[in-house]
Amino acid sequence: MKVGFGKLGNIGAAPLLEFLLDERADRKDIDVRVVGSGAKMGVEQATEVAQKLLEFKPHLAVVTSPNAGLPGPTKLREILTGGKIPTVVVSDGPAKKAVQDIEKLGAGYMIVEADAMIGARREFLDPAEMALFNTDLMKVLTVTGVFNLLWQEIDKLVQTIAKGEALTLPKIVIDKEKAVAYSALNNPYAKTKAMAAHEIAKRVADLTVEGCFVVKEWERYTQLVAAAHEMMREASRLADEAREMDKAEDRVVRMPHHDDGTILSKQRLIEKPRRPGEA
Amino acid sequence: MKVGFGKLGNIGAAPLLEFLLDERADRKDIDVRVVGSGAKMGVEQATEVAQKLLEFKPHLAVVTSPNAGLPGPTKLREILTGGKIPTVVVSDGPAKKAVQDIEKLGAGYMIVEADAMIGARREFLDPAEMALFNTDLMKVLTVTGVFNLLWQEIDKLVQTIAKGEALTLPKIVIDKEKAVAYSALNNPYAKTKAMAAHEIAKRVADLTVEGCFVVKEWERYTQLVAAAHEMMREASRLADEAREMDKAEDRVVRMPHHDDGTILSKQRLIEKPRRPGEA
Amino acid sequence: MKVGFGKLGNIGAAPLLEFLLDERADRKDIDVRVVGSGAKMGVEQATEVAQKLLEFKPHLAVVTSPNAGLPGPTKLREILTGGKIPTVVVSDGPAKKAVQDIEKLGAGYMIVEADAMIGARREFLDPAEMALFNTDLMKVLTVTGVFNLLWQEIDKLVQTIAKGEALTLPKIVIDKEKAVAYSALNNPYAKTKAMAAHEIAKRVADLTVEGCFVVKEWERYTQLVAAAHEMMREASRLADEAREMDKAEDRVVRMPHHDDGTILSKQRLIEKPRRPGEA
Amino acid sequence: MKVGFGKLGNIGAAPLLEFLLDERADRKDIDVRVVGSGAKMGVEQATEVAQKLLEFKPHLAVVTSPNAGLPGPTKLREILTGGKIPTVVVSDGPAKKAVQDIEKLGAGYMIVEADAMIGARREFLDPAEMALFNTDLMKVLTVTGVFNLLWQEIDKLVQTIAKGEALTLPKIVIDKEKAVAYSALNNPYAKTKAMAAHEIAKRVADLTVEGCFVVKEWERYTQLVAAAHEMMREASRLADEAREMDKAEDRVVRMPHHDDGTILSKQRLIEKPRRPGEA
Amino acid sequence: MKVGFGKLGNIGAAPLLEFLLDERADRKDIDVRVVGSGAKMGVEQATEVAQKLLEFKPHLAVVTSPNAGLPGPTKLREILTGGKIPTVVVSDGPAKKAVQDIEKLGAGYMIVEADAMIGARREFLDPAEMALFNTDLMKVLTVTGVFNLLWQEIDKLVQTIAKGEALTLPKIVIDKEKAVAYSALNNPYAKTKAMAAHEIAKRVADLTVEGCFVVKEWERYTQLVAAAHEMMREASRLADEAREMDKAEDRVVRMPHHDDGTILSKQRLIEKPRRPGEA
Amino acid sequence: MKVGFGKLGNIGAAPLLEFLLDERADRKDIDVRVVGSGAKMGVEQATEVAQKLLEFKPHLAVVTSPNAGLPGPTKLREILTGGKIPTVVVSDGPAKKAVQDIEKLGAGYMIVEADAMIGARREFLDPAEMALFNTDLMKVLTVTGVFNLLWQEIDKLVQTIAKGEALTLPKIVIDKEKAVAYSALNNPYAKTKAMAAHEIAKRVADLTVEGCFVVKEWERYTQLVAAAHEMMREASRLADEAREMDKAEDRVVRMPHHDDGTILSKQRLIEKPRRPGEA
Repeated sequence: MKVGFGKLGNIGAAPLLEFLLDERADRKDIDVRVVGSGAKMGVEQATEVAQKLLEFKPHLAVVTSPNAGLPGPTKLREILTGGKIPTVVVSDGPAKKAVQDIEKLGAGYMIVEADAMIGARREFLDPAEMALFNTDLMKVLTVTGVFNLLWQEIDKLVQTIAKGEALTLPKIVIDKEKAVAYSALNNPYAKTKAMAAHEIAKRVADLTVEGCFVVKEWERYTQLVAAAHEMMREASRLADEAREMDKAEDRVVRMPHHDDGTILSKQRLIEKPRRPGEA
Repeated sequence: MKVGFGKLGNIGAAPLLEFLLDERADRKDIDVRVVGSGAKMGVEQATEVAQKLLEFKPHLAVVTSPNAGLPGPTKLREILTGGKIPTVVVSDGPAKKAVQDIEKLGAGYMIVEADAMIGARREFLDPAEMALFNTDLMKVLTVTGVFNLLWQEIDKLVQTIAKGEALTLPKIVIDKEKAVAYSALNNPYAKTKAMAAHEIAKRVADLTVEGCFVVKEWERYTQLVAAAHEMMREASRLADEAREMDKAEDRVVRMPHHDDGTILSKQRLIEKPRRPGEA
Repeated sequence: MKVGFGKLGNIGAAPLLEFLLDERADRKDIDVRVVGSGAKMGVEQATEVAQKLLEFKPHLAVVTSPNAGLPGPTKLREILTGGKIPTVVVSDGPAKKAVQDIEKLGAGYMIVEADAMIGARREFLDPAEMALFNTDLMKVLTVTGVFNLLWQEIDKLVQTIAKGEALTLPKIVIDKEKAVAYSALNNPYAKTKAMAAHEIAKRVADLTVEGCFVVKEWERYTQLVAAAHEMMREASRLADEAREMDKAEDRVVRMPHHDDGTILSKQRLIEKPRRPGEA
Repeated sequence: MKVGFGKLGNIGAAPLLEFLLDERADRKDIDVRVVGSGAKMGVEQATEVAQKLLEFKPHLAVVTSPNAGLPGPTKLREILTGGKIPTVVVSDGPAKKAVQDIEKLGAGYMIVEADAMIGARREFLDPAEMALFNTDLMKVLTVTGVFNLLWQEIDKLVQTIAKGEALTLPKIVIDKEKAVAYSALNNPYAKTKAMAAHEIAKRVADLTVEGCFVVKEWERYTQLVAAAHEMMREASRLADEAREMDKAEDRVVRMPHHDDGTILSKQRLIEKPRRPGEA
Repeated sequence: MKVGFGKLGNIGAAPLLEFLLDERADRKDIDVRVVGSGAKMGVEQATEVAQKLLEFKPHLAVVTSPNAGLPGPTKLREILTGGKIPTVVVSDGPAKKAVQDIEKLGAGYMIVEADAMIGARREFLDPAEMALFNTDLMKVLTVTGVFNLLWQEIDKLVQTIAKGEALTLPKIVIDKEKAVAYSALNNPYAKTKAMAAHEIAKRVADLTVEGCFVVKEWERYTQLVAAAHEMMREASRLADEAREMDKAEDRVVRMPHHDDGTILSKQRLIEKPRRPGEA
Repeated sequence: MKVGFGKLGNIGAAPLLEFLLDERADRKDIDVRVVGSGAKMGVEQATEVAQKLLEFKPHLAVVTSPNAGLPGPTKLREILTGGKIPTVVVSDGPAKKAVQDIEKLGAGYMIVEADAMIGARREFLDPAEMALFNTDLMKVLTVTGVFNLLWQEIDKLVQTIAKGEALTLPKIVIDKEKAVAYSALNNPYAKTKAMAAHEIAKRVADLTVEGCFVVKEWERYTQLVAAAHEMMREASRLADEAREMDKAEDRVVRMPHHDDGTILSKQRLIEKPRRPGEA
């Protein structure tokens, strides 16, 4: 089965998304194709990306972009759903405004509240700062459960398609409680730290939006977006602390894929992963 | 000008590479297309990826994969160079064995020594662990200067093509000293911390290779690859510490792209970036 | 001159407020009296507190409470302004709704946005947790500049009264930018860390309000308020980090009171404080 | 029942003391009144404070001050015991010299050895430094068990008075072992870290006393008192580390008050607090 | 029984070695003599040291030095084995080349791979830097199990000699797995952190050897050896983190010597140590 | 010139002392001999150690031991001074009682107040704990200036003997201010952190003495000595923090020995060391 990923612009959920499905590159049940346009997300790019992705004839399409309500991302999913490809939109907070539009097309969506906008001001954001923000953000998305939710939902669709059953596309706004429920963290304090990290990450967007769109004086907005990135760095450290807590009790849940696509699981470091239901 | 990225499998240098060229999505001089195959890197995937990428008619191609000497990555660059596209291979340490082959095709290369192999054992590596390893690794690649070197070399090619001048493709093995020279760190202790982080990251591969290919007893290899990931986490913390040192003196160099592609630069947080040569 | 403090219930700004005016207990120009009712803040307590405070015949009254719009705090300031005492209300975010009412009485106000409500659920909050939350919060209020703003505004009133000039009572909502402007931090990254700490502290209230007033299932609200306290602990650590940055350059501004009430200042640790205008 | 608090000057045990009795402001069995004089602790202030406190007719009085042997604190307790109010003195190390005098008046005492004197030198101590020292100190007093001991002893008196039984006022010097016994910490290493934090906090006073009263050269005493505050910051971090240890095993004991004044207890985060003896 | 220690030059395993045998100075079964030559390790020093040590008539000799293949260390062990003293060589990585030579003499050896060469360049190494490198290194050797292995092997020889049984001298290259097996760490993540620390420490030597013997430009080699010491500091912090993990579960294994030389053991902090086999 | 070191038992100042004189093993002006007795420090051991040391005919002797007032250490220095060797005693706090006795023999002394006794209880102290305590302690002694003072005083004697001038042996009690004056730390906050670390280290002895000699119940003394070691770990972390502060400004003073014994110095990492008086 082919899973196609169409990527316009960048959000924290995008760069590693396809690898979450096949973390050791040994799955035999899926083949992945990715087409993207880098940082740009105009209608022109969206059109080209969508067409190429269609040519790969995917059984399922996952499209990622910031703000799924913009014309580019809209065009992307219209072309894909127009091509009868079951399509799931993965996007950030502002995409909530596009939910009705997405549903009308028959597409699904997973909206990541913690996937905060970057501090995109030229006085502040250079390639290194961009990369650091993304590593911090991706660490938060991993530990707080967001990535787990994303790949498990996609896996579910893959299984359903494989069995030839009727598909129900996900319609999920991933908030702090939904995320942490998927985090597989054991220690309840680790969970609260993860939830705190998630909330801080989400609130980063308040400052970047203010710094990028509201405040006009450059000294002020530079300080605002820099403060926002400090928040994300802090959220990342808190997420790391949460995971270390589970290490401290040897209770890190691991859920590797079998090469047949089955999700195994285990908890002790020195322990074999097991299939669901296996003793 | 179109820059095409072909991605087979994953290395730390790959997921954010195209965004490093256009961190605020405002460059007018380049348009980017990415085609990838997710975690798989067989010849079949490579062929499809290469053909689609050719259809985008890029002026320059950058291909990323682990171990560029494998048949898949080899096929990918052969099709691209066969299509007369100037091609640069970005790969990890084992790619050193492919250097002659790459040169024969007239392609360039940038080999990232610190881009260590992940601990790909089913008892250990699940989607979350994979994502965390990559965030740690990408933080190391950012702070130690590796990413700076990569995007600046690609930018140089873009400028040369834009001017219609003769292209010289890069042939670089990025070691600890080359990386740190590009780190733009100011404090000399920050540089030594970055170099230490780079060396630790590079040495991660010794343990993952031993754990994945040499040791057969599962309890032993699980411990080895887990130790390797602890090394990468530590390298990431050390890289973070290096950058904080420059913050502590307000000496973080930032090199944002202008929308015309010029690389600006600045050092104080509250300061406007300047064009090269500008007072 | 007598400064009276009336305290109903607790907010982070309250427990150390009077000591901020006279940190070494050597000021000769003011004498302080405090009357409070502990944790309770009903109308009955407010009435008793106000009457006793009036009996001290203060030249200026500062009243502190959560949510200044509640009946108790309202009664407190009504009695004081009824007694012709210039009165300044210090309260937290929900007090914004009481601003008009405060202005009508001719009182001033300083509303501390970062002074987030505690996670007051019996499953979570015990005396120790209450104390730890307050120490974290007070550290944030100190480093981010909130305390500086509060005591400097009160000092200004004291000076004005001492000179017999006309009083203008403050009307200030202390947000992240106003606070940091008073923080006296030097390093611009320290300022961004302080601003990030301020924002995180303020956002604690979103979770405690949700946990205390919205969510009814005890397992859920316990997790929410616990996550909120983790956020405050993190904000406190970030504030500490900001101050350490200024230590690292020997640039910690200190503003001790002279015993005549003058605010001196200095920056190097080994340096004598100077009067304003002194070389 | 009314509990009165009379506060002269500041010690770490004072600012949050009344809130420790009623951390969620829902106790129906007690009503609290506080009268204080801010930083000053002269006889004049003590007299006024005592008289106002008497007017509230408390069933029990708790008085706080540094060095209970000074004339002001002495006057304060003399007036209260003269008014037949059962009185407990809470003070710091130097108060040990006043123990006989306190006993002669029939008052009780709780002397907090770790409640070290602040570094009260004008070259060093400004409002921000004062506040930070107090937050660090209060964190130490919370985690090491001092606050638990204080509020549980006062609660005991409240219960005894409520039952109309004969009162025995406490006569306790709170040293490192007594404190830690009340800390409710579970992990034995957490206890040793708490004890270490307690000892460091107590030893802060050696340096502040030397810096404030013995050494006359300002460069030397500035360094001494600054070193003392660094010790307190370190003690605070160690206390925090101790508590985190108990979080890491989900063994943080919580002892919330019921609204009838009963001390409940629990240990797991997601668990209901129970009355004493309840299964 | 007399155990003699001959020390030429310094390695991390040397300065505390004799104290590891008798950590509370109460063993009655052994008496220790040490003769050393400080930093120098020439043949002249070796000869004098060996002769004096022989005069003490030890039943067992342990000799420490860097690179046991050099003429000095070679002379030292030749004189001792020539005097019929059972001799064990403790040395660092380069000593592997001397293994055959050592075996020919009938001596034993324990080669410590993690005992990396110091960054011995005058532009970098002064007494303070030397001491700090050694404290970091010794912390790594302690936590990762190296010291445990060393003293337990020597203890075994002591017991054998005491019983008059035939001696088999150890022939051990202590690598990361052998070390961690002796670490007595419980938590499996603590073990992986210890293994990571061990690997980083070992790799320090790559940079110090390059900096001391390969690179000639002083700016470059200064940076290289400084980076190497940052690696060792990091290894030390990671080792500390590993031990704290076992504290967090109250699972720190302790193996004190009884005064009769028996190795006792215990695990809970508040627990009596027991003899082997004791319940 | 020959410098002899006689070592009885262990203190923190002892294990690295001779290496502080010749950190890169290249000094041509001195040759070092060490004779020691391991952990034991009885009169018998002292006699043997002293006699062997005399046989080396040192021009100067440095003797180290805990509590120089005990019979063993006393015998050691008596034999050496009886042999007309200029002798300097290096010992810990309890040695203050031996000062008169040392002076009567014409010997010098350097007493290290921060060199606190270890927690020598069998329930707690095993070889690993002993080693960790010593690494922490040695880090404190390095950064706070104690080691600098020790080796510079010995170097002074070496120079004086080399010139054939009259010797004045040192008579120094190294307290917190004397130590920090030698620390060569630049940042004044680094100095206060170093002083705090020194004070904490010194106070460790209060708890170990109480735990080893005063308290008899094993549960209590185990907790006391464990708390003492936590204090030393904390002092070590604070010392590390102090040094990092100077790194953060590239102001770490380095004082390497030239091979002729001259003490060079430098401050920037990338800078050549200079002789005294050299520009």
